[in-house]
Order: sequence, then structure tokens, then C-alpha cells
Amino acid sequence: MEPRPTAVRPPIHLRIADDIRMQIERGELPPGAAIPTLAEISERWSCGMNSARGAVALLRAQGLITSGRGKAPVVRIPPRRVIRSSERHQIEKDLALKPEAERGAIGEAETNLNMSIGAQRFSSQYDQVEAGPELAKVFGVEPTTLMLRRQWEATDPNTELRLSWSVSHIPLDIVKSNPALLDPNNEPWPGGTQHQLSTVGVEIMKMVDEVTARMPTTVEAQLWGLPEGVPLIFCRRISIDGDGRVIETSDADYPADRTELHFVTPLRPWPKRRQA
Amino acid sequence: MEPRPTAVRPPIHLRIADDIRMQIERGELPPGAAIPTLAEISERWSCGMNSARGAVALLRAQGLITSGRGKAPVVRIPPRRVIRSSERHQIEKDLALKPEAERGAIGEAETNLNMSIGAQRFSSQYDQVEAGPELAKVFGVEPTTLMLRRQWEATDPNTELRLSWSVSHIPLDIVKSNPALLDPNNEPWPGGTQHQLSTVGVEIMKMVDEVTARMPTTVEAQLWGLPEGVPLIFCRRISIDGDGRVIETSDADYPADRTELHFVTPLRPWPKRRQA
Repeated sequence: MEPRPTAVRPPIHLRIADDIRMQIERGELPPGAAIPTLAEISERWSCGMNSARGAVALLRAQGLITSGRGKAPVVRIPPRRVIRSSERHQIEKDLALKPEAERGAIGEAETNLNMSIGAQRFSSQYDQVEAGPELAKVFGVEPTTLMLRRQWEATDPNTELRLSWSVSHIPLDIVKSNPALLDPNNEPWPGGTQHQLSTVGVEIMKMVDEVTARMPTTVEAQLWGLPEGVPLIFCRRISIDGDGRVIETSDADYPADRTELHFVTPLRPWPKRRQA
Repeated sequence: MEPRPTAVRPPIHLRIADDIRMQIERGELPPGAAIPTLAEISERWSCGMNSARGAVALLRAQGLITSGRGKAPVVRIPPRRVIRSSERHQIEKDLALKPEAERGAIGEAETNLNMSIGAQRFSSQYDQVEAGPELAKVFGVEPTTLMLRRQWEATDPNTELRLSWSVSHIPLDIVKSNPALLDPNNEPWPGGTQHQLSTVGVEIMKMVDEVTARMPTTVEAQLWGLPEGVPLIFCRRISIDGDGRVIETSDADYPADRTELHFVTPLRPWPKRRQA
């Protein structure tokens, strides 16, 4: 192993990028403001054009400035953040018991996105696939077990960009007694998945959300219209019944620059007589 | 607005990167395997060296291959994932009532990281700062309100890389009646923050975790030893008492390639008489 160098002066382009980042964080360069040109950087930091270009490329990869095609880069204007709260889980469960008119009036997507349902273009795709090794472990089934797979996408008809995307897997055995659940023409189903499951006698008692993040692939970045340097948050929601049986996984991606996931954990009170 | 071109063939370097990404996802190029050299890419996809270099740079930015200094890039070996579950919130609350010996035996860090406590190097830093406009909103206090700020960091003494980092804010008024809570020399405090709060009569009844993600700054990437293309997950944990008062915020960063955050939401049962 090489010894770690101590207090090495970082390359000039890193220092320039950090100086500009701090100007952005302090608000001296507000959203929409042009950052210094390559010539200005070169003069102010006494560096070559390659270092100036390197600094700008780094700020772009960190998601701090726009990647204008030929245009001067500006400090990125953060998009409006959509908050998705785990409190929806109980709301959706309670909705499943409401009359159909009420269930139909409240679509999940309505409250999830900064755009009314009417303005979005929805597509859903149903098919049946084998669980495969990864989902087999989650569901505790054989990898060859047949699953109902449902994929949903919403796009903005003006930009054709993706607004939401998710894919759900349910063991076919759980839902096949109600053939209406296998038909995508019944979308949007009033009350959503929790009501659908109620028609086959399943009640969800616990949701587990598993969250991580990664950089998008080229195709994903194009589909969502993601600027450079913006990760995708990945959330797998696992629905579990009262017997601890995994009923559904629902995988969704969320662009990190426009999404906040909130998870609420109520705590049980301490007993009255404290031992402390 | 420019019309959106339909079915444009993407630039060659994007197609090459996607081809190689799919080989990685299908396991044809397993973790640790060398990806094709620039010469091989140039020959196989009949492209120039610049396109080959562009494809490799893209795979690196997406976090799929290592950025070997002068070495041939290989498919990244994913680090072991640490799972952090919201079920810890209740466990930590219950721990606060246990005798000191028991509280001291279970450190938070012990179960959080893939490294025993003894092997980690800890530092904590306490100071008092004004809330400022952003935290003032979260706490519902004046921006000039004094806060106890505590920052914790754990590093690996062998690599000097960061293993964990978080910063906590508590209004000074809440904790100052127990001066022991203001002294970093009392770290590690047996039982952690929930026990500390119990000494000033505060019981946390709800935790809200707010999660998003972003690319690290240059400095952060160096501190954590993050490979290119790996985002940081940002989690703000807000502790709330029975009166709905915000008691503490705790902000933490987690490298997305080695962390999964799990959030468990128990659901209340449907009433016995179903109206469906």
C-alpha cells in the first residue's frame, strides 16, 4: 500500500470548483446566475484553459450548474420538490374501505406529482413473469413462481418526459381468484392496490420501504430529462400481511433533485414508572 | 421551442456505454472483470478512439466501473451494504430506560457499521450556534435562537476515510438545565440522545426521516473515499415530542453504494365490519 500523502495541495481545477461551489452555497451566485467564463476563471485563478474547463466540468457533474449546449452555464434553478410521505400507506389502506365513488375520486397520482392528473399521460402494462432469483428471496418462493407484473408510467404530454414510474410484483396465486385484477383495462382501479387486494381477502399490515440511490443510465437520464449530476433515488416498497407473508413489491425511481421521501415513525410511550 | 426529434440514433459513445452496461447487468462482465480496452472498443464498434474514451468516461460517471489511475478499468465490485432500519428508533427509546451498564454496552455505532467500535476512530465536536433561517423554520423558533450543535465523525484509522458523519441541533434552552449534556468529554453517552433528553424531562414520541440524495462535492468524495458516480444519500431525522414540538434535527450523509435505509410502517387493522 502506498503511504497517504499528507496535506497535498489539491489540483487547481478542484480548488476552483470548490471556490465556485461555496459562492453558490453562500448565495453570492444565486440560481440562474452565470458562473465566470473560462477566460475569467483563467485570469482570476491564474490557471490554464484546461484547468478552467476541468473546474466547469466538475461543477456540472456535481449537479450545481446547467450543462447549456453552447450556452454559458448558469447556477441550476432547483425544481420544486415533491414530498412523498409514508403516512400515505395508512391513508391508502383506509381508502380501500370507502364506497367506490369516494375511492375513485382520490387518485394516488393526484397527490404525488406537481401536475394535475388530467394533464398527465398514463400508461400501464400487465404481464406474467417468473419471480427469478432476486424476487424469489424477497417473497420466499421458488424462482419459477409466476408473478403478476404491473408497470406504470406517467409522462408530460408537452415534453414527453417521464413524471413517474413504478413496477409492482405480486405472486399470481394471490390475485388470480379475481380475474378483474389481471386486466389492465380496469385501470385506474378505484382505491388502488390495497382495495384490489381486499377483493381476494388480503389485508396489508406492514409496509417496509427500502431506499438507496444511484446515478441514472443514459437511457434513464433521457427518459426523465435529468440534468447531469442528478441521482435517482430507488425505493422498494414491500407490502406484508398479518402472517408476515410478502404480498407485493413495488419498485419506483425518483429524481433526487425534485423528490423528498418522508418516513414517519410513531414511538410507543415509556411506561409510567421509570427505572432510570 | 424546438420540436423533439423522433427516434434519433443516439451518439455512438452512448450506445457503446449502454451495450457494456447491459453486459455488466447480465453478469457477462462480472465484478472485477476488465472491460474492453479502448482499442478493442474501437474495433468492435467501428468507432474512433475519442468515442471509445467517451463511452468509458460515461460508464465511470455512472459508477459502473472503477477509475483506475493508469490501470485498465474493471467492473466495480459492490461494497457490502449496511442496512439502517427505522426500527432502531424504538430500540433506542427503550434503551434509555435501561440501567447504565446495559445502556453503555450497546453503542449506536456498533450496529450501524461493518466495523467494530474498537477499530473505529471517533471524534465529536460541540459548539453553540444560531439556528439560522433554515433550521428556524424546522424548529419554529427565531433565527437567532441558540442551538447546541454536535458533530460526530468516525473514520477508519487505516485508510483515514470517513465511516460515518452526522450533525445534531437541539435548542439550547431544552438541554441547558443539565450542563453534563453540553460537555463533549461525556461522550460516548450511555444510551445516546434519547437518554440524554430523558435527563431534562423530554420524551420523543415521533421521528420523521426526510430522505433525498445528491452528488458529493470534491471534498466529500475525498473524505469518504467515494468512487466516481456514487451519490450521497442525505437523511434528516427530526425528533418530535408528545406536544408536537421539534426537539432535535440530526443530519447524516450515507454513501449510496454501501447503504440501504429501511423504513417500517405498521398499519392499523381494518375494522371488523367491512363496508366494502
